[in-house]
Amino acid sequence: MSIPKLYGSLSCQDTMRVLASIYEHDLQFEFIPVDPHNKQTDQAFLSLSPFGQIPVFQDEDLTLFESRAAMRYISHHYPKPGKEQVFEDPKLQGIAATWIDVEDHQFNSPSSKLIRELIENPKKGFPGNQTVVEEEREKLAKVLDVYEERLKEFNYLGGNKFTSADLSHLPNLYSLLGTSLKKLFEERPRVGAWCRDILSRPAWSKVVEITGINM
Amino acid sequence: MSIPKLYGSLSCQDTMRVLASIYEHDLQFEFIPVDPHNKQTDQAFLSLSPFGQIPVFQDEDLTLFESRAAMRYISHHYPKPGKEQVFEDPKLQGIAATWIDVEDHQFNSPSSKLIRELIENPKKGFPGNQTVVEEEREKLAKVLDVYEERLKEFNYLGGNKFTSADLSHLPNLYSLLGTSLKKLFEERPRVGAWCRDILSRPAWSKVVEITGINM
Repeated sequence: MSIPKLYGSLSCQDTMRVLASIYEHDLQFEFIPVDPHNKQTDQAFLSLSPFGQIPVFQDEDLTLFESRAAMRYISHHYPKPGKEQVFEDPKLQGIAATWIDVEDHQFNSPSSKLIRELIENPKKGFPGNQTVVEEEREKLAKVLDVYEERLKEFNYLGGNKFTSADLSHLPNLYSLLGTSLKKLFEERPRVGAWCRDILSRPAWSKVVEITGINM
Repeated sequence: MSIPKLYGSLSCQDTMRVLASIYEHDLQFEFIPVDPHNKQTDQAFLSLSPFGQIPVFQDEDLTLFESRAAMRYISHHYPKPGKEQVFEDPKLQGIAATWIDVEDHQFNSPSSKLIRELIENPKKGFPGNQTVVEEEREKLAKVLDVYEERLKEFNYLGGNKFTSADLSHLPNLYSLLGTSLKKLFEERPRVGAWCRDILSRPAWSKVVEITGINM
């Protein structure tokens, strides 16, 4: 039996999502770096990932090229007895699936755009576009308002335990908390506490260590 | 035991996705129309769907406000014996989950924009924006090229049976096949055959009948 392989880039948030899931489930794995700039033209890579996306997660004959699908698979296929991050009950599973889609459809877009404007572009010497920052900040604030209400009722987004619905937020959350937007999270008490809780998980610390993301 | 409720609009593709799933699983249900224009300000509705999205699927004490999460829940919770649209095996399930995300991340955006430019805007008296049409058509063509390759290996996107990964495409697929873009699908033989197959399912015919979508 071979160990799972993760093809990706340590500077890519989608790769970090799957890394977090791998570490949460204590999987042995092999990491294969993929140059984010060549991935769309490398035929060998396109045979694994037809849209040229990273990461790709391989488990023997299985190849998954969508990060959230890989995260769902790992949590269902490699549960840690007594510490499962999925619910058995289909209704509770449906709720967690809803909040995985909330991350994907509501949180991911404004948070990714803000990371580009506040972190990535300045690193390349381009100033962040203030109009975009203001627009996306406003969208993100509305998302966090909903999260604040949700977290008044439950300890985590997917229910009363940590699930992939929380994990899926970690890469963008971590980066944004290193910017001036930290207060957007901190001024909402439940959201602030949730961030501190999920970011302090040992599995996430391993992702920070291996990727060397700086805040 | 009360029957499930679907809050939505019959002119909304996301509502049609859940309707298709409901009919595939022969569920009795109550349909509650929601005005797509008032949904974001109606407090009672926002208590069900915090981002003001339709549709909302309710099954007793369960409320799901993301259409793909509702579709996943219905297929797992209401399997038709011998005709399950989910795989038991976690690896096959992981593959189907990947192709649900492909619909969401690759197919949905260009197809929705093309529907707006080619169908919705002209209905309101605005001409379609040809630059947008060309750009999105090109993106969609690339997605369909990948589908053509996939369908050379498997009968359906998620594997060798019809699953939510196919179902999720139906609303946008149906609308686009009624436009000049039909040839984009038909000129790819496996994609064309796949479209004819999944659009001829009795459950989808019921959606077309109840929603009165015109091509």
